[in-house]
Amino acid sequence: MANTIIGVMGPGEGATQQNISDATELGKLIAEKEWVLLTGGRNVGVMNAASKGAQQAGGLIVGILPSENRDNSSPYVDIPICTGMGGARNNINVLSSDVVVACGMGAGTTTEIMLAIKAQKPLLLLNAKQSLMEYLEVLPYPSPKQATSPAQLISFITPIL
Amino acid sequence: MANTIIGVMGPGEGATQQNISDATELGKLIAEKEWVLLTGGRNVGVMNAASKGAQQAGGLIVGILPSENRDNSSPYVDIPICTGMGGARNNINVLSSDVVVACGMGAGTTTEIMLAIKAQKPLLLLNAKQSLMEYLEVLPYPSPKQATSPAQLISFITPIL
Amino acid sequence: MANTIIGVMGPGEGATQQNISDATELGKLIAEKEWVLLTGGRNVGVMNAASKGAQQAGGLIVGILPSENRDNSSPYVDIPICTGMGGARNNINVLSSDVVVACGMGAGTTTEIMLAIKAQKPLLLLNAKQSLMEYLEVLPYPSPKQATSPAQLISFITPIL
Amino acid sequence: MANTIIGVMGPGEGATQQNISDATELGKLIAEKEWVLLTGGRNVGVMNAASKGAQQAGGLIVGILPSENRDNSSPYVDIPICTGMGGARNNINVLSSDVVVACGMGAGTTTEIMLAIKAQKPLLLLNAKQSLMEYLEVLPYPSPKQATSPAQLISFITPIL
Repeated sequence: MANTIIGVMGPGEGATQQNISDATELGKLIAEKEWVLLTGGRNVGVMNAASKGAQQAGGLIVGILPSENRDNSSPYVDIPICTGMGGARNNINVLSSDVVVACGMGAGTTTEIMLAIKAQKPLLLLNAKQSLMEYLEVLPYPSPKQATSPAQLISFITPIL
Repeated sequence: MANTIIGVMGPGEGATQQNISDATELGKLIAEKEWVLLTGGRNVGVMNAASKGAQQAGGLIVGILPSENRDNSSPYVDIPICTGMGGARNNINVLSSDVVVACGMGAGTTTEIMLAIKAQKPLLLLNAKQSLMEYLEVLPYPSPKQATSPAQLISFITPIL
Repeated sequence: MANTIIGVMGPGEGATQQNISDATELGKLIAEKEWVLLTGGRNVGVMNAASKGAQQAGGLIVGILPSENRDNSSPYVDIPICTGMGGARNNINVLSSDVVVACGMGAGTTTEIMLAIKAQKPLLLLNAKQSLMEYLEVLPYPSPKQATSPAQLISFITPIL
Repeated sequence: MANTIIGVMGPGEGATQQNISDATELGKLIAEKEWVLLTGGRNVGVMNAASKGAQQAGGLIVGILPSENRDNSSPYVDIPICTGMGGARNNINVLSSDVVVACGMGAGTTTEIMLAIKAQKPLLLLNAKQSLMEYLEVLPYPSPKQATSPAQLISFITPIL
């Protein structure tokens, strides 16, 4: 039977220190719940940090790579999926996740937030900036729930599953 | 030699009356410049209105459809491209356009704005809401130029090409 | 209203002289019928030759490129569509065509033949090798019609449309 | 570190009894080697049978689904990846596999054989029909190795890895 898959989306090169530490902790907590972690797979930023946290806690990590091969895969990814379709792979990240978590902000992460809204996927934000929340309120969709810590975010996931 | 392709992105079902009239006028002006209009191809909202405007002015219209067939194609599209890949086709819209124009707001349109930023495509906004502009200023990219009328927007395109 | 789109698929770097001359003639005849020519868009082999033939006869040519940009687009393509998804774009070639024509053989062309069979698209072969015809007969699908000249192939298209 | 991923491709609805028993045995042997099994994910034919064999031997199974959701996922898949891109997902199957195995014949399976050839992936055939082998010999690529039993096929994989 299919495992529960939690997708953690966030910036690559543009990740802040806060994003990195949040993502590492998220990865760890997801692994401890025995959920599968899904990320964008690259060896930078939130993708890499969440994968590292999950790996160190004995979790299973799936990385959906934009590239045709594994050259830039995070070393903490167990199952690298090579899509060869660049940024269009963000839709696969979202469709494959039971719950989509956005950790930090960037152009790519925003596409994943919007694709999750379109696909009506459960969507949770961690430490999102006020300007994003205000923008989301203007869009004609229910606003996603926001958490202020990885632990709180995990507590939001359980009742959804 | 390749034609100049102007991509007009905007909401489908969620388009406002202002979006529809802006898009119709944009389509007309694009056709008058003898540029090719590219849209998301469906028979609703901004996609349909821009196509209609361009068609009535004798333009050529390409529609990049999310579906596997033409069932929901705008009747004003000359060249329907059937991708069969749903929302992931938004990346093709952006990559195929010389200039990306966002006319109105919605989740899909926001993905196209973000994909254009990632692909470093010239990006122009028409009558964007203040909350979007504020969000874009927070992201670590140059903010896109904004126009307040279709005619002004067209005047911004020429020097880019 | 949508134009009639004829997709001509065939090898790139591996095209034979016969493939090139067949494709050039096919492109010309398609343009003379005022059908739109669709190819894989690159500046080599059958894609380039068909586009050249159609361009010289005043036709309209759409090229569905595997790449994220137009760098390797045939100079005879009017509408380059940049998919950024590599060989996965072959499915778009097939889904977007009213009739799929295979001109020559290669691994990519064979994927397009098979995708056309799966999508139940009208499929015509030009000068296909005997081994391909024998393989197709083993598969559990109706075998595609084969033509021995571009002119004959065109005569097969009209009753399908 | 990335696991070794073996992709087993084969017909869905059109699978023969031989294909089903071959695929079940292949899945079992792949799991016993502690390799990850990757399939096209659906609950029919070779995809389902290989997944069942691997599941019963305690393996880990990834299914790359054509659909936007898990509705038609094999119940033996642990990690369903929802691509929402139909037959274009075959390219992801191939790019993500360290070794591609074709078990049985059909239009979809043939696309995967051809995509593996294009991507220069190690490719092995199990009980392929003579007509396919003859067709492959005509194409300008090295012909893939063929095995006559699941056990022999597994013995061909080890030296490749």
